[in-house]
Amino acid sequence: MNFLEERIVKDGVLKPGNIVKVDSFLNHQMDVALLDEIGREFHRRFADKQITKVLTIEASGIAIAYPVAREFGVPLLFAKKSKSANIGDDMYTAEVESFTHKNKNQVVVSKQFLNAGDRLLIIDDFLANGCALQGLIAIAESAGATVEGLGIAIEKGFQMGGKIIRDMGYHLESLAIIEGLDEETGKITFRAQEEQ
Amino acid sequence: MNFLEERIVKDGVLKPGNIVKVDSFLNHQMDVALLDEIGREFHRRFADKQITKVLTIEASGIAIAYPVAREFGVPLLFAKKSKSANIGDDMYTAEVESFTHKNKNQVVVSKQFLNAGDRLLIIDDFLANGCALQGLIAIAESAGATVEGLGIAIEKGFQMGGKIIRDMGYHLESLAIIEGLDEETGKITFRAQEEQ
Repeated sequence: MNFLEERIVKDGVLKPGNIVKVDSFLNHQMDVALLDEIGREFHRRFADKQITKVLTIEASGIAIAYPVAREFGVPLLFAKKSKSANIGDDMYTAEVESFTHKNKNQVVVSKQFLNAGDRLLIIDDFLANGCALQGLIAIAESAGATVEGLGIAIEKGFQMGGKIIRDMGYHLESLAIIEGLDEETGKITFRAQEEQ
Repeated sequence: MNFLEERIVKDGVLKPGNIVKVDSFLNHQMDVALLDEIGREFHRRFADKQITKVLTIEASGIAIAYPVAREFGVPLLFAKKSKSANIGDDMYTAEVESFTHKNKNQVVVSKQFLNAGDRLLIIDDFLANGCALQGLIAIAESAGATVEGLGIAIEKGFQMGGKIIRDMGYHLESLAIIEGLDEETGKITFRAQEEQ
């Protein structure tokens, strides 16, 4: 197991409905040393790309993406969720259905901060149905920017998102891919991945 | 001027309604090196407090608070905004009226991550009416935690929040206090503060 898989086993809490709560260290209370290590790991995995910007989505993507942007020495840009019907034409926008919150949002990024020269690393904390990543990819495409890669802390391997994104041809790195959650035994099964 | 005041003058954009947009470097697209410097500065100003946790509020507080938590070597905890009428009794909750978004939210923190032994440094990006900080203070009080200090990147000195928080007796450090915004000339006037 890698460092994140170990931490999930140690501190993750299984809940009904195929949910593993990592809110004690990843997405409510956060262990910054762990997040810094996540940043270094994504930097290592995408070191050969000429990344100009890290793109994420509020709110829990921000703390995962911060150390990544830091390691690459590039700006961090986060897509904002907007329920407003009135989105100015100075914004790129995409509709995203949230698995976590069971609702739809418009996500927006100012056109000022994304352009055709940008080579993006898209970062988020969880990957389930892939809708958030698809929204960010759509925004990147609207700007004419290139998506050099995507980095996810925890992928739910038994949901469709990972397959969808990989089948689209993108380079997706998920530090931990959960294949199974046994609520009775508390056992979390990770997909074996090649040493990167 | 300090490093943040200089950056506001250089890259801040004045908008009608006493608004200075800093979204190119602080709260939409973010300059991580600048944020790291903010983290070091808050660490310096509160170095004598035995901080056990940094508390902030989603979403744009997170990137300001991350480097602060990093410098102190403590967990980062962010209050989540919830429109849900059903908040479980496993959450501390406070109502916050947002100046930026012109709406009210319940903000919530899991009771699991805040307790009477905690000595908090509360961090946020903007201070206007003080409602967000008051909500975080109320949550801290619900937990029996101590608020050792509050750190704000940019305070609107012509609004009530700073006075309210200081009059409550709290140690509030704002890196930049904007006293005036002249839309015609583009001039931003900062409150002179003693060298910290």
